[in-house]
Amino acid sequence: MRITSAVTKILGHYESDNPGVKTNLARMLMHGELAGTGRMVILPIDQGFEHGPARCFAGNPDAYDPYFHYQMAVDAGFSAYAAPLGMIETGAATFAGAVPTILKMNSSNSLMSKDLAGDQAVTASVSDALRLGCSAIGFTIYPGSDASLDMFEEIRELTEEAKSCGLAVIIWSYPRGNISKAGETAIDVIAYGAHIACMLGAHIIKVKLPSAHLEQADAKAQYIAHNVPIDTLADRVRHVVQCCFNGKRIVVFSGGEAQDADSVLAEAQAIHEGGGNGSIIGRNCFKRPRDEALVMVKDIIHIYKN
Amino acid sequence: MRITSAVTKILGHYESDNPGVKTNLARMLMHGELAGTGRMVILPIDQGFEHGPARCFAGNPDAYDPYFHYQMAVDAGFSAYAAPLGMIETGAATFAGAVPTILKMNSSNSLMSKDLAGDQAVTASVSDALRLGCSAIGFTIYPGSDASLDMFEEIRELTEEAKSCGLAVIIWSYPRGNISKAGETAIDVIAYGAHIACMLGAHIIKVKLPSAHLEQADAKAQYIAHNVPIDTLADRVRHVVQCCFNGKRIVVFSGGEAQDADSVLAEAQAIHEGGGNGSIIGRNCFKRPRDEALVMVKDIIHIYKN
Amino acid sequence: MRITSAVTKILGHYESDNPGVKTNLARMLMHGELAGTGRMVILPIDQGFEHGPARCFAGNPDAYDPYFHYQMAVDAGFSAYAAPLGMIETGAATFAGAVPTILKMNSSNSLMSKDLAGDQAVTASVSDALRLGCSAIGFTIYPGSDASLDMFEEIRELTEEAKSCGLAVIIWSYPRGNISKAGETAIDVIAYGAHIACMLGAHIIKVKLPSAHLEQADAKAQYIAHNVPIDTLADRVRHVVQCCFNGKRIVVFSGGEAQDADSVLAEAQAIHEGGGNGSIIGRNCFKRPRDEALVMVKDIIHIYKN
Amino acid sequence: MRITSAVTKILGHYESDNPGVKTNLARMLMHGELAGTGRMVILPIDQGFEHGPARCFAGNPDAYDPYFHYQMAVDAGFSAYAAPLGMIETGAATFAGAVPTILKMNSSNSLMSKDLAGDQAVTASVSDALRLGCSAIGFTIYPGSDASLDMFEEIRELTEEAKSCGLAVIIWSYPRGNISKAGETAIDVIAYGAHIACMLGAHIIKVKLPSAHLEQADAKAQYIAHNVPIDTLADRVRHVVQCCFNGKRIVVFSGGEAQDADSVLAEAQAIHEGGGNGSIIGRNCFKRPRDEALVMVKDIIHIYKN
Amino acid sequence: MRITSAVTKILGHYESDNPGVKTNLARMLMHGELAGTGRMVILPIDQGFEHGPARCFAGNPDAYDPYFHYQMAVDAGFSAYAAPLGMIETGAATFAGAVPTILKMNSSNSLMSKDLAGDQAVTASVSDALRLGCSAIGFTIYPGSDASLDMFEEIRELTEEAKSCGLAVIIWSYPRGNISKAGETAIDVIAYGAHIACMLGAHIIKVKLPSAHLEQADAKAQYIAHNVPIDTLADRVRHVVQCCFNGKRIVVFSGGEAQDADSVLAEAQAIHEGGGNGSIIGRNCFKRPRDEALVMVKDIIHIYKN
Repeated sequence: MRITSAVTKILGHYESDNPGVKTNLARMLMHGELAGTGRMVILPIDQGFEHGPARCFAGNPDAYDPYFHYQMAVDAGFSAYAAPLGMIETGAATFAGAVPTILKMNSSNSLMSKDLAGDQAVTASVSDALRLGCSAIGFTIYPGSDASLDMFEEIRELTEEAKSCGLAVIIWSYPRGNISKAGETAIDVIAYGAHIACMLGAHIIKVKLPSAHLEQADAKAQYIAHNVPIDTLADRVRHVVQCCFNGKRIVVFSGGEAQDADSVLAEAQAIHEGGGNGSIIGRNCFKRPRDEALVMVKDIIHIYKN
Repeated sequence: MRITSAVTKILGHYESDNPGVKTNLARMLMHGELAGTGRMVILPIDQGFEHGPARCFAGNPDAYDPYFHYQMAVDAGFSAYAAPLGMIETGAATFAGAVPTILKMNSSNSLMSKDLAGDQAVTASVSDALRLGCSAIGFTIYPGSDASLDMFEEIRELTEEAKSCGLAVIIWSYPRGNISKAGETAIDVIAYGAHIACMLGAHIIKVKLPSAHLEQADAKAQYIAHNVPIDTLADRVRHVVQCCFNGKRIVVFSGGEAQDADSVLAEAQAIHEGGGNGSIIGRNCFKRPRDEALVMVKDIIHIYKN
Repeated sequence: MRITSAVTKILGHYESDNPGVKTNLARMLMHGELAGTGRMVILPIDQGFEHGPARCFAGNPDAYDPYFHYQMAVDAGFSAYAAPLGMIETGAATFAGAVPTILKMNSSNSLMSKDLAGDQAVTASVSDALRLGCSAIGFTIYPGSDASLDMFEEIRELTEEAKSCGLAVIIWSYPRGNISKAGETAIDVIAYGAHIACMLGAHIIKVKLPSAHLEQADAKAQYIAHNVPIDTLADRVRHVVQCCFNGKRIVVFSGGEAQDADSVLAEAQAIHEGGGNGSIIGRNCFKRPRDEALVMVKDIIHIYKN
Repeated sequence: MRITSAVTKILGHYESDNPGVKTNLARMLMHGELAGTGRMVILPIDQGFEHGPARCFAGNPDAYDPYFHYQMAVDAGFSAYAAPLGMIETGAATFAGAVPTILKMNSSNSLMSKDLAGDQAVTASVSDALRLGCSAIGFTIYPGSDASLDMFEEIRELTEEAKSCGLAVIIWSYPRGNISKAGETAIDVIAYGAHIACMLGAHIIKVKLPSAHLEQADAKAQYIAHNVPIDTLADRVRHVVQCCFNGKRIVVFSGGEAQDADSVLAEAQAIHEGGGNGSIIGRNCFKRPRDEALVMVKDIIHIYKN
Repeated sequence: MRITSAVTKILGHYESDNPGVKTNLARMLMHGELAGTGRMVILPIDQGFEHGPARCFAGNPDAYDPYFHYQMAVDAGFSAYAAPLGMIETGAATFAGAVPTILKMNSSNSLMSKDLAGDQAVTASVSDALRLGCSAIGFTIYPGSDASLDMFEEIRELTEEAKSCGLAVIIWSYPRGNISKAGETAIDVIAYGAHIACMLGAHIIKVKLPSAHLEQADAKAQYIAHNVPIDTLADRVRHVVQCCFNGKRIVVFSGGEAQDADSVLAEAQAIHEGGGNGSIIGRNCFKRPRDEALVMVKDIIHIYKN
């Protein structure tokens, strides 16, 4: 399949990147059921690390096996598959070339004290990503946390190294810490978190779907003064896209907790309408029986194709 | 245009620097409407990182797009354009050679706790500046903050590397922390902050416009004993210039919060009279409609040309 | 002896590793009385460091001598011998080639304050392992401790270096800190700790034998909802194996405190039934008279051979 | 001028140093009005960094200009001129070869919190010293402060690098922190601080002039038991020289606060009588009118010449 | 003198070390009055750094001069001379080849706060040891202190580098911190501290002479249960030797505070009987008149020769 004009346009936005990075962005944008559309669906499997294996996979024991997720990524037509070091290593040779992979470079976990909850451990390197044939590295930042400045400096170093090696950089931007619980998904905070990720040099930004809540007083005043449209989910997605350098950076959205398929599809519809580049779907995928998950992903893809 | 004697004189003050650094200083001093005058106007766009995107750009949505600022820098005849990594990357190829750029190497943000407010994250590298064709690196220090010694050590390392690569070094010196709110812009404190930046090896120093307040008792005694003139803004600018190695280092001033055009121009007039090298204008530029901003910058430049 | 199909199958699970790593895994899997079976018994001697020499060896003074343990490892047919730097150095030439060795890279001790008890000191390097002819490095992590994220980052770096040099990586995963005393061996916690070690890229995971206790509320809910079998020790071993990438990583179990031989053998039986890869036996070995220990290890090996 | 026997004898004490270091020591010992005498007068200008520019220079505005101090060092016949990075850079080419320079590598400042007052920031590198043609590096330690161990490790690294590059190392040893105010200049403390600097490998040690106060009980007992003469300033200088490896290291003394010329000369006389190697004079120089300062330095030199 | 069988046997215990390390161990074991006996007496002079110069040398002013100690080491027939950087540098060329030297790499001091008393500063490097012709590096650890894990990691790095360069490694193991004052010299604690030093890869271990006190409850139970003989000083020395890999590592003992000659000799006698490798004698040497010290060392050597 030849590179489409939609993808060519997107690649053009990464005008400072070397051909290696563009090649890896193209690999993800030209793979799976959404190949060539400029949209993406990404399968992330780091929940075993984040929440514990049984809490994630007890209801679907096949999912204890790393092959299960690789196969799901291939069969459902995902654009890429993201996971921590051990997960990628266990299937990287068997599934070599079958799906672009994203090495998730840092991870949190649910055993540690809440006091550490604003931080993560860096658990892989750019060299690991290269030797495992990955197309990109993934990294979580927590803007607002006490560890945030350190996390920004960690991803800065990894970003420089990754870009020099032709790898794409995906930042998961999850504000927390010096923010209320509702504020973590407030539209002003989500948009700000996405903007910070862009400023840090991310090629692809992953954020949670924002609510209509406004958290910061100074920002709230501006949203009201200028009537920024944030009533519908599509409005809010559109605003986040705007805050990602006016659409010059790819932004994808996650739903979070597992929920019914209709809700998932409604969210995808709103992302599509708001001009978001796609979805990142983990728990809503592997917490379903495989056949059910395949149908749901197919339906999501159908939305993005229109 | 040939190098003017005004610029030759300034370059002569950087007698320890290699030709690479002098070339990049010359690029900024010989660019834009003030080329050859020895004066500079710099456009800095890091407010989206510092304060959040909507808070900055909601009133002028074109400004969400990094191209907007590059184009403004070119059209208004700025001497240079300064921004963090992501902003520079997004336009560096399209605007290659159109305006000298300054890579802002560290950034604060408004999501984090006040406890961290005396620190910033380093978000770019000298290698980034080189691959993006920048003429200089920019770095903020907070003399007086608990993180100040660490920040001095960070910029020391970056300065050594930047100079060895022929890049100019610009320090934003913003005292805070162990200082009263009024003291942050007190003439003794601003002058001290500028002097520290000079001591750290900066080629260009950026400070806020100082008030006539005197913060530190030991310093105050000397200002009074020796009748140091600090009554007018021009007096205070002149004193800051003096504290920058008696004018042997370039010093530019920022106004801060957006305000009416007349105030901005009055400040530029005082900087001009006091022998300051110019203005750095961010919010007062992009928070206006583009046409209005272009007129205001033109008026500022007019002041410096006389 | 030719590589058996059992071993070939296991090596196949390490599909991302270079031939050097596979060779060293094979060395351990093809050595001693369990050679070729896919099972392992490992002799670890770091208790002198951890608890003090007299507390460990006063009852069996021959064990003060490092040769004693090397000889035990050889005579009892262990698969490998693990110890800290000084212990390995003292016998590495005399016993060169006699038994695969694992250099234990970090250690705790009983002199230090309880405040440090969630951390260990790194006391050896990958270069040390190479110059001493070791087949693997060993490293303890304490998931849940305040030092856990730092420990994950330490082993991440050592793992990358070890793998690039063809050394296998064994992680001792001992949750503690933000966990109740009973929780340290709770099945959900042990399984989670094993999963984290897998995620970090360990080739072999060492955990304590889990109890039927469930520590974390969110995990407990899933175990109950999905009727995960954890009643017998064999059930629990089976569940840990499942959490080690569905058996794609080798997992071995330790008993801990010295106890009567029947208990040790009953545990080995349960590990065997649950599909665990073997036992790691320290105090239960050297705290017995040598002849008694040899018999006990022989009996353990007998269990695993069936 | 040929190397004198006095200088040859001193150079002989640095028997472990390479010819590069000896050459730079010789440059300082063979320069200025005291060339060849084995005595030194050093001009240090870092007070603008330490105390603020106006507090230092408001009474003598010519001194805002870095050239002023270089010219003073040349005209007054100082042995060497010491200053931080920015000060040296601004005149290093114009005054190349005119006076040996010492790059002061770390600095404190008066804006920061007292909580940081036991520490300094490292603001230059050995590479900086080399590219600027310096003969030595200078570094302040605060024995007794909470940062003291870190400072010792910093200077250790810089010393190793400097010596390998043929640069001399000068340590400013200023005990403080875990010491009473009077104790900071107590003879036992000053002597101990000088001894520590020697132990750290300094070629030249700079201390404050000691008082007859005895600070530490265990030390005091020894001074009394053995009747160590410390009554006169010359006695105390002699004791400090003794504590500097029995005179095998160069030790120079500073007076501190500006004072009348007679006091300064009396101090020089005592240093001379006690066998100290010279004076380091900053504020007592630039806080005077230039002509007055030149006379005073001439008188000091006259004392050391006899 | 040809290598004796006693020395050959000892060198054989260092079976993992390269010929460079064995050569340097041999240099110390084949030097001075105890050459070839397998016993050692070491002269350590770091007390000026640790306690202050006058407190150490006021009673014997010749000892302010570094040559004094070098000459003492030579004249008294010591096996080696240990001192910090500055002390070694001052005599290393004059006494080149006259006595093996040990560069003491870290030091404490009596000016700093008790809060830092569980730590030391690293004040020299392996490169320093090499350029100064040393045979070994020396390093103090404080097992039990809050800084202990960091100290273990420091010596680990230095040990790896030193061994790779053919230098021997001597660890001063002084438990403190999380231990009672009496516990610092308790037999269980001293033996544990010696064992940790062995585990860290030391070639030679230096500990204080242990008392019959038992500090740790779990250890105490084992000493009692197994009737470990610790009544006499010789018994306790024998037990420490046992805990040093059953005598496969050299262990030497220090007495500490200056005391009468008979006590010093009685201690040496006990060390000799218990199979310890020798004494390390500082204050008991230089706090005496030189002639008296020479006699005392001669008497000690006489004990070890029998």
